[in-house]
Formats: sequence, structure tokens, C-alpha cells
Amino acid sequence: MPAGRLVTTAHDVGFVGAGQLARMAGEAASALGVSMAVLAANPDDAACSVAGEVLVGSPFVEPDLRALVERCGVVTFDHEQVDLQIVDTLAAEGGVLLPGSATLEFAVDKAHMRTKFDAAGIPVPRFVVVEPGDGATKAVAHFAGVCGWPLVLKAARGGYDGKGVWPLTDRDEAEAVLARVGGPVVVEEMVPLDAELAVLVARRTSGDVVDWPAVETAQIGGVCREVLVPGRLPGHVGLVGVMAVELFWSEGRLLVNEVATRPHNSGHWTIEGAVTSQFENHLRAVLDVPLGSAAPQHNAVASVNVFGGVDGADPSRLRGRALAVDGAHVHLYGKGARPERKLGHVTVCGDDPGDVRARAWSAALALGTPAPEGIELPAGVAR
Amino acid sequence: MPAGRLVTTAHDVGFVGAGQLARMAGEAASALGVSMAVLAANPDDAACSVAGEVLVGSPFVEPDLRALVERCGVVTFDHEQVDLQIVDTLAAEGGVLLPGSATLEFAVDKAHMRTKFDAAGIPVPRFVVVEPGDGATKAVAHFAGVCGWPLVLKAARGGYDGKGVWPLTDRDEAEAVLARVGGPVVVEEMVPLDAELAVLVARRTSGDVVDWPAVETAQIGGVCREVLVPGRLPGHVGLVGVMAVELFWSEGRLLVNEVATRPHNSGHWTIEGAVTSQFENHLRAVLDVPLGSAAPQHNAVASVNVFGGVDGADPSRLRGRALAVDGAHVHLYGKGARPERKLGHVTVCGDDPGDVRARAWSAALALGTPAPEGIELPAGVAR
Repeated sequence: MPAGRLVTTAHDVGFVGAGQLARMAGEAASALGVSMAVLAANPDDAACSVAGEVLVGSPFVEPDLRALVERCGVVTFDHEQVDLQIVDTLAAEGGVLLPGSATLEFAVDKAHMRTKFDAAGIPVPRFVVVEPGDGATKAVAHFAGVCGWPLVLKAARGGYDGKGVWPLTDRDEAEAVLARVGGPVVVEEMVPLDAELAVLVARRTSGDVVDWPAVETAQIGGVCREVLVPGRLPGHVGLVGVMAVELFWSEGRLLVNEVATRPHNSGHWTIEGAVTSQFENHLRAVLDVPLGSAAPQHNAVASVNVFGGVDGADPSRLRGRALAVDGAHVHLYGKGARPERKLGHVTVCGDDPGDVRARAWSAALALGTPAPEGIELPAGVAR
Repeated sequence: MPAGRLVTTAHDVGFVGAGQLARMAGEAASALGVSMAVLAANPDDAACSVAGEVLVGSPFVEPDLRALVERCGVVTFDHEQVDLQIVDTLAAEGGVLLPGSATLEFAVDKAHMRTKFDAAGIPVPRFVVVEPGDGATKAVAHFAGVCGWPLVLKAARGGYDGKGVWPLTDRDEAEAVLARVGGPVVVEEMVPLDAELAVLVARRTSGDVVDWPAVETAQIGGVCREVLVPGRLPGHVGLVGVMAVELFWSEGRLLVNEVATRPHNSGHWTIEGAVTSQFENHLRAVLDVPLGSAAPQHNAVASVNVFGGVDGADPSRLRGRALAVDGAHVHLYGKGARPERKLGHVTVCGDDPGDVRARAWSAALALGTPAPEGIELPAGVAR
């Protein structure tokens, strides 16, 4: 960041969005003495309590985002639900928004991401981009003739955490889903999954890159439930800030599934598990100061997400039960409890993968997380 | 905390004072999903940016402190500059303030602390409590007849970080200092120091205690400059919250010097160096949930304080230089830079005591900390 800007702006960093990613970045910002503002949809969003200033508004409203840009040395992103035109307009006016729209587009638009990666020779699942209209169902059926059913249909824009993704078993289902989705979609083969992995990298404005060890994730319905370190992969990409790349390990091949151009659920383990967290390095990257070591500090780390139970009980009322688990680092995001809403996570570091996994699950279940179908709980952990 | 209070109060925890201790506790509170309010002297105090609510006022003004107590499930302390009468009044009204006035008095009143510890058989430097008035100088001279000059005179109340402490070399100096200090004083022998140590413990309301490994501190003029782990001691005391006990190691004896009934500068290393930080365990203690492990996570940890330089430069402008030091965990408190003001600290964890000390000092000096007289800097660290 140019030194001159610092003295004329109210905050070092502004976050578009005030969810849990901005909240955890705020904890890192406070430690670094970095002042932070947020553009929040609601004044009680997760990050508002740790922000030096809260602007309530929408990144789809140009004056709202401009207000944040004008008050901050650099603006970065808690989520990718943004209007890239507005980002470009404000950057053209001299605002500093990182990562820039060319990078954000990979996360904002799945059709763009798949097409660009494929053209660059990066392995991705076989796919086709289908525009809305009369020929859409026919195009999907044609693609099924190549890959076979079932297929996966993804809205090109607007999806997250499993939303905007539908499995398709036949042409009728394709027609019904296409009628519901307004815009372009990506239709892909459903690859047989041996494992899901994620790679997290940080790159600062002046170019230095660090990458954390690859992790293994367990997902249900497109929602991350569990992250285990070590995973089985390294990797690099270019941007400013942190980027997560989600990968499929399928029949001996690695395929890129999704990218997130910001801190990511697959990197929450870095808060306690690595020398430098993804949140601190995201701040260091956009402020263009030296990145910290991404070396892991333990032989094994498990991070398990906390979800709202069917009774809607607030996990903060159950905090004491989880903190009784030895070494449980409990993170609660201050969000209102609703069934199946992601409300926090628990990280445990140690030497033995089975042991840290058992402790992290014990604490997450103690916080009211429903025991998920489709993930085998460690031995000794009661559902 | 009674479950009934939680639903009727706006915040889980309130801090009296909004300095760096409350700020670092706020970072831990955010992670735990614990909402926090502060009673701040000024709206731009260090902790205000991470507090869910800021009340501006004084703990010496009963309605100000009552407002905090009424809005928080439990109230605890960033500093001990409080009126114990007001604390008692609010506790009698049903407010929850932890630690309570009986514990706070040890930190508030050095005469009380010395007298009680001595009566309990806890080794302390030889001392005498001197009341203000005509006979004061004579009483000091009489004590010098027992211990010899020089002596140390401490105001019983109101001192911190070396303020309110004077060395006395003769009777004339004693008379001059006594004329300046309004209230009772403690006069003590000046013990020959082989080392200064600090022990940090946490105790929750229902009684469980954890203690971190003892640390060695380097002080200049009563101000902590450097903390090294491991030190050479364990120890226990009773209270709720975190308590630091500063000790003199003198000619083969351990003497209690000071106590602080709150998180303490000697425990900042625990943020990265221990499984659970002093700030998180202080919160867990006053909320009466299970305490976390105080086990160290590294063979060696060094924590070096950042002070304002003579030019008054803001260390946040120098952040990038410090972050270039491998493994440097930089903490800046967001306080206005003034020469000799404590503005932050740097912690480095590793295997070799000399190596972590060299890196922590390099980063602290890079942030503009003047190289202190009286502490030998590690080899290779430029003044």
C-alpha cells in the first residue's frame, strides 16, 4: 500500500461482507494493529463486533461499495457475491480492491473458471457450458450421450456451500432444473471420488507466494464438514490475497473442482495449526508486507465444522461442554443458530491423526452439531 | 455464570478498562463467540475496535461502572485502577465482578499485599509500611538502620509499570519523596537480583486451576522489556481469573515482588506459545467453563515489548520490516505512538533460546523500539 494512502484513509483494510471470514480476519487484524472496516448486509453480522467501523450496505450498490473504498487503504472480500462492473469502475477511479476483478471472476463465474482452466491445460471434470433457452435441455442430453448419466448441473453464478448445484439423473430432471435456473449453467460429468482435497496459497501484491500443506476435506451435499492435515498435494496460482483450490482425487487423477479467491473453510486449521494463519497472510498479502511462514506446527490437525442442530439451540450455550475436550480450540462466529447453518468450527492439533479427529468431533458434537450421515465418526465418538 | 443472566444481558463479558489486555482478550473472545463490552476512558482506547459495545466512563464513577455491570453477565478487569468500595457496592446489588474486591485488593494496595503475604509465611523482601505524616521520614531512617541504604519506596496505591516506585539512597532523598507521595508507602530492602521471574495461573469460579510454566523477565526501571520461556519455577494462588506473580530470585531465595490479578505482560507469550493463551483462560475462568491446557508448544519462546522511539514514529508504519523476520508474531495495540510508551510486543517460538531471542529482538527493533540500556542484545542483533 502506498504510504501516502495510509494517512488519508480511516482504515487500513476494508472487507466486502461481514461473515465469519471477515470476523476471523478481524482477530488477526487486531493483533497486527491493522484497523479494519466492513461493508455488512446487517449490523449484527458476524464480523461487526470486531470491526473498527461498520458500513451497512450492499456491494451491488455502487455508492455503498464506493464509501468503503474511500475509507480504506485496500478493500478485500469476505465473499464473491459482488458486481465485477462496480469493482472495475471503482478501481478505475483509483480505489484499491484486491484481488482484482480478473481474479474474482474465477470465483464469481464457474463457466469462466472451467473454460479458462481447461484452455490452460489444467485438468477439470469434462464439462459443457449451457446457455438458457430452448436448446438447453437438448444440449445437456447431448453431453450425457458423451459422458453418461448422472451429471452435475451448477449455476454459473451465485452458488455457495452446495447451493446452486444439482445432480441430474435423466433428461426430465435436466429440463426441470434448467427451468428453475435463470442464467448460464455448467454441466459436468459426475466423477467417482476417491478423496476431496484443498490447496491454499497466498500471494502478496509484489509477488511472493506461500502455500500451506494440502488438506483433505470431507463434504456432504457440497458443504465442508471436516478438514484433515496432512493431505496429499502441493500447488501454486497467481493472485493477490489467499486463494483456495478445491480438488477431486478421482481414479488416480487430480481435477480442479472449485476456486475461492479469499480465505476458505479448508484453511481454518491454519489459525492454530500453522505458523501463520490464512487470515493473517491474506491481510499481509493485500497490504503488501512480507508473508509469514505457512509451515504446519503439528503432525496432525483436524478441523470440524459446527452446524446448528434440529432444535436450533445456540452452541454458545454448550461452550463449556466443548471446552472440556482437551486441546479443543472452539471458534463460534456469533451467528444466529438455525438448523444446518454453519455456526463455527473446532480445531485440535496433535501427533496422531485419529486422536485429533476424535477430539475435534467430540467437541463439535458437544456444541450441538448433528452427527452427519455419510461420514464415519472416529471410534469412541458417540453420535 | 447463572444461565438466567445470559439471556437478560447484552454481553457475556465486560472489561473495566480498554487497554491492550482487553484488546487481546477481545481477540480471544471473538474466537470463542463470547460477546464483550468495555468501559473505556476514551473512545479510541486500544480495545474499543474489538469490543461489541464501548461505554465511555470511569470505574471511579459509580453509575459508569454500574452501567457496565448491568449490561454484562460478568465484569472483569483490564487494570486495577478501581475503587474497591464501588466494586463491593455493585457486587452487593447482585452484579458479578471477577475477581472480587478481596482479590483485587492485593493488586490495588501494595501495603495490603506485602502484609498479608508476610503473615501467611510467603517470602517477601523485608519491608515496612509507612503512613504519611510527621514521623514518616524517621520511620524510613529507622528501617534503614535495620536493612541499610539503598531502599526502595513504593506508593501503596496507584503505581504501575515502574510509576510510583523510587529508589532511596539516603534520608534526605526519603524526605523529598515522602513529601511528594500523598498516601501510605511501602519501604523495602533493595534485594540483589539474580533473576526476575513471573508465574501465571488461572482459576475458574468453580475452582479448577491451571498454571503456565514460569518465565524469566528482563525489566528496566520497573518496565518489562523481554520475557523468556522456559523460566525456572511453578506456583499456585487462589482467585478467579488469571493472576501473575512477579518474583525476585535473590541469593538462592525466591521472594514475591508483585501480583497482578489479571492477564499480565509476562504472559503475552502464551498467545502463540501455549496451547491456551492467558487471555482465553481468563475468559474461560470468569465464565466458569473448563480451563484449557497451559502446556507450552515449543521448546523456547521469546516475547519482546515494542516501545515508542524518540522520534515518536508509529510502529505500524514499520510493520513490513518486522514481518520480514521469520516467525515473528507482531502484536500492535493500536495506541498512539509516544517515546517510551508500550505499543506492542513480538513473540517468536522455536527450539533454541538464543535463536528465538535474536529474532524477537530483531523484529522489535525493526518496529522502532529503542535498544535498551541494561539488556544485552543477542549476538548478531544490531542496536
